[in-house]
Amino acid sequence: MNGWMGKILRVDLTRGEVRDEALEARIAKDYIGGRGLGIETLLREVDPKCDPLSPENKLVMANGPLTGTKAPTGARYMVMTKSPLTGSVTCSNSGGYFPAELKKAGVDMIVFEGRASEPVYLYIEGERAELRSAAHLWGRTTHETDAAIRRETVRGTRVACIGPAGERGVLFASIMNDRDRAAGRSGVGAVMGAKNLKAVAVRGDKEVVLHDARAFAEIVRKIIKRFRDSLKGGKHPLNLHGTAVTVMATQNFGVFPTRNFQQGTFDAWEEIHGESLTRKFLVRPKACFNCPIGCGRVTKVDEPGFQGTGEGPEYETVYAMGSNCGVSNLAAVTKANYICNEMGMDTISMGATIACAMELAERGFLPEADVGGPLRFGDARALVELTLKTASREGFGDLLARGSYRLAEHYGHPELAMVSKKQEFAGYDPRGAQGMGLAYATSPVGASHMRGDSAYIELLGVPMVLDPLSWEDKSELVKDWQDVFTVIDAAGLCVFFSVRNLVTPTRDIRPQGIMELLNAATGADYGLDELVRAGERIFNAERLFMIHAGLSCKDDSLPPRMTGEPLPDGPARGSVCRLPEMLRSYYQLRGWDENGIPTWTKLRELGLV
Amino acid sequence: MNGWMGKILRVDLTRGEVRDEALEARIAKDYIGGRGLGIETLLREVDPKCDPLSPENKLVMANGPLTGTKAPTGARYMVMTKSPLTGSVTCSNSGGYFPAELKKAGVDMIVFEGRASEPVYLYIEGERAELRSAAHLWGRTTHETDAAIRRETVRGTRVACIGPAGERGVLFASIMNDRDRAAGRSGVGAVMGAKNLKAVAVRGDKEVVLHDARAFAEIVRKIIKRFRDSLKGGKHPLNLHGTAVTVMATQNFGVFPTRNFQQGTFDAWEEIHGESLTRKFLVRPKACFNCPIGCGRVTKVDEPGFQGTGEGPEYETVYAMGSNCGVSNLAAVTKANYICNEMGMDTISMGATIACAMELAERGFLPEADVGGPLRFGDARALVELTLKTASREGFGDLLARGSYRLAEHYGHPELAMVSKKQEFAGYDPRGAQGMGLAYATSPVGASHMRGDSAYIELLGVPMVLDPLSWEDKSELVKDWQDVFTVIDAAGLCVFFSVRNLVTPTRDIRPQGIMELLNAATGADYGLDELVRAGERIFNAERLFMIHAGLSCKDDSLPPRMTGEPLPDGPARGSVCRLPEMLRSYYQLRGWDENGIPTWTKLRELGLV
Repeated sequence: MNGWMGKILRVDLTRGEVRDEALEARIAKDYIGGRGLGIETLLREVDPKCDPLSPENKLVMANGPLTGTKAPTGARYMVMTKSPLTGSVTCSNSGGYFPAELKKAGVDMIVFEGRASEPVYLYIEGERAELRSAAHLWGRTTHETDAAIRRETVRGTRVACIGPAGERGVLFASIMNDRDRAAGRSGVGAVMGAKNLKAVAVRGDKEVVLHDARAFAEIVRKIIKRFRDSLKGGKHPLNLHGTAVTVMATQNFGVFPTRNFQQGTFDAWEEIHGESLTRKFLVRPKACFNCPIGCGRVTKVDEPGFQGTGEGPEYETVYAMGSNCGVSNLAAVTKANYICNEMGMDTISMGATIACAMELAERGFLPEADVGGPLRFGDARALVELTLKTASREGFGDLLARGSYRLAEHYGHPELAMVSKKQEFAGYDPRGAQGMGLAYATSPVGASHMRGDSAYIELLGVPMVLDPLSWEDKSELVKDWQDVFTVIDAAGLCVFFSVRNLVTPTRDIRPQGIMELLNAATGADYGLDELVRAGERIFNAERLFMIHAGLSCKDDSLPPRMTGEPLPDGPARGSVCRLPEMLRSYYQLRGWDENGIPTWTKLRELGLV
Repeated sequence: MNGWMGKILRVDLTRGEVRDEALEARIAKDYIGGRGLGIETLLREVDPKCDPLSPENKLVMANGPLTGTKAPTGARYMVMTKSPLTGSVTCSNSGGYFPAELKKAGVDMIVFEGRASEPVYLYIEGERAELRSAAHLWGRTTHETDAAIRRETVRGTRVACIGPAGERGVLFASIMNDRDRAAGRSGVGAVMGAKNLKAVAVRGDKEVVLHDARAFAEIVRKIIKRFRDSLKGGKHPLNLHGTAVTVMATQNFGVFPTRNFQQGTFDAWEEIHGESLTRKFLVRPKACFNCPIGCGRVTKVDEPGFQGTGEGPEYETVYAMGSNCGVSNLAAVTKANYICNEMGMDTISMGATIACAMELAERGFLPEADVGGPLRFGDARALVELTLKTASREGFGDLLARGSYRLAEHYGHPELAMVSKKQEFAGYDPRGAQGMGLAYATSPVGASHMRGDSAYIELLGVPMVLDPLSWEDKSELVKDWQDVFTVIDAAGLCVFFSVRNLVTPTRDIRPQGIMELLNAATGADYGLDELVRAGERIFNAERLFMIHAGLSCKDDSLPPRMTGEPLPDGPARGSVCRLPEMLRSYYQLRGWDENGIPTWTKLRELGLV
């Protein structure tokens, strides 16, 4: 078995036992890796109706076959579990160096089950894997935990851990690795906390054995050359200004979510644009394992009240904590980002939840007494304070810790939560980027920009151009894009790099390059149809989990603001998201029935039954 | 492979090809046989959303491992397909001699697929199986067809065929075998007709090889002895007066459906009671293959206008065409029964549909002009005429041929159709036999007395006694009973004989005796839990097909009369069926979610995913 390492670690936290299992070749091929192995395991082993924070739930960390290889951006792993935020399955992924180190330790997947009686962390050193006490780490920030574990283990150890937010069950707590890389969404950190699992630390020394190393190197060489050529000697915009460079595009298209999605443009957008970040706070760019782009930002803020160093903010953070909260103070946004990283929280859900609170307060639905004072859009200090309070679940923070949907519902106005499946939107207003609305609504993990992000096409024209306001052509796009993103996720690659190589000259969306890499790495001999089918299999498996968890087509939804309140400003002014129309043809294209349930024929075709 | 014969015949009607396939041992054990093999095949091979009358649908005839053995009542086979009446899967079974002959030909199951371009019949003689032209048989009655085929084939050939009703797509057309035994329900005959398949004729000469013939003979000897002892030298009531002897029980409990379920007692019940049948028309009782009871009735009617000879009526016919139509003329009921047998139609749906038409007419919803004259309850002549018209789909008969639901809906009053899942009730009013209401509503094939008939317990006290009006204890009963009936069906046995041997001294419903027979016959070494689990597997597989066909918990329903109009007369007066209450706990006991969908955990537990 090449490419894959062939080993699964099963960690029974209740009994404190770790054991090796073999990865089955057939499953590895049918589910590719990462996101695929994760859902295959969860669907087989976890009751979709279980309480996500109970010992019944399992947490899977899975690499793809390209993780840790020389494939450009082969840096990523996937965390999968039943989410306490959405009640559905989630897959939350991250890059950095931890995943590649896990690969070098010979591990394709870790399955955590049960619950430890006391805080523990899993330590993997080469062939050894053991649970160690984390009593001394409980309550510590992610940075402190990372440092402490690295001190007490061998040099080169990489750490993924939760912060106080995960320990305390914040419903959007993240799992941070390599200090500032986040498997951010859907509360995967809360599941880890509920299991009394503080961290996973790993040091490996294996080589990843490839099926055809020479062919693989050649493919990589070509990809890198094409990438370099496309830069024409310059730098990649994501390297220059980080992902926050996207602000210009979303602002230009009028889909830059502002004041809890009440507007699509933000007057002070330039204040929080990536270029401002570069000018004001950038120390240096930073790349994940084997990434030729390097979009990460090491930053430092000196402004009084917001001092700190760390990484970020990303575009999504700039939207959620910036424009969406009406906050133009980039120092405050960056500081709130630092807090999220250190406490272990998702910046998107955090920012969007505060934005929701701000609208509830401005509309008089949220009493000042509950917050402890007035709360208005644009309040940079409140942004930082509420972020801290959420991590500690102190006072009003305890409500914020449940996310915007439960907050808005608590105050009788669930329609003011900008969510799909109770997960907060990414930074693209679906009214001005129709495909994003469909992608949010149908993502099995709730609103996400990572499970089929049509904004690339609709706003950036990458790798092809479609009108962001058209909806007739989006069902097919979103379906194809979702399946292909699934392949990227399962392979262990980063979307940023892969997304440019996904369209054939005839405008078909096809992962040709990924297939070549996978075949050279694993010898699995995928055909292109077969590979796309594997992506579709994974996507439908997640859908199955979602449906058996009790969600339905009613949850393939957007808040009424998106479908009923036209955007009041900017180039997309007057537009609403045509979700119902798109959904109908989307279900058909998916081979799902009118209730959004995969037909038996489709399930059989995919080998899921 | 013992007990099972190991052979599946696959008949591709489109191509005119017949080929042998091997029965897989694992599937045979997990699905027992008959009803189990049928649903396993359909779930794997048929799109649950297909048009039931299109070539896409398949029709399965399947024996159980005990069919054709010396096991008492081991006479039965199962016809399975997607039903044109209910839109869900159906299993319709029958005894007689055809199934045992099929077994002797070495065939466990026939799978018919596609559609013949011209009428054909399948002829099996020993190892040979071929499609023959049925051009000369098209349009002929079942009796004529049986005789014609027996003339042109070897002596001892047994025939299952459709009549003109099946050819013309009557939605409740039956498949008749051995002249007067019916796989009656859900329109299996219409599917056969749509495939241009007129008949299946079979002659075999194989022995059924048993795993442990000596042990098997000993078990049979004990069962027969126990049965004989229970008769104390007398005759079995079903042998004395046929199944219509049940009239006394249903009348006594006030659940004898009268005038389209407007009442629960019928003044003239004695006129149509089994004893009257014996006195008036019985020629002789008749038994199926290897049945020690012999409930069949060979009868002869001399009354002017209703002359004829044939078999029947059964209790269900007496209810549907007698009390339910307000008809006390047993000669007319028997004549209408003869017509149904010869034309190939289900007597229950036929009678209940006419009863529904009568109520529609009496209430003024059905114009006289449509029927061609007045239509009133009690009109014996109309009963016979409308039955004939239905078979030919002539005039008003074309509407009747669609069953009571579509008829009542056509006239704007679907609530007057006494159906579950569009299939007509059997002869037990659910308001006075609560378990029957739950059984009707949750039967995967629509209302049926054969898929878990709690009336045995509620009305006859066999094999134990429960208050028919209580509902708190019925969910568990119905669930257990459904699973056990599934085992009976899958084994190839008749419910009449098996039902007495299904309760342990501790009142658990457990098929101990069937397990012993199956193990001696097949060597499958079932444990009791394992066997009941197999029944549950089959039942849930049918549920899966039903759900993927587009039905839902909304279809686990009874007409409002049952849940909202108290019975006006008899011992159960004032009672309604407490379906919603029972349904809730039933779903829980089943391991289904609140929408009646099998949970993922349950499906996994049963090996269905």
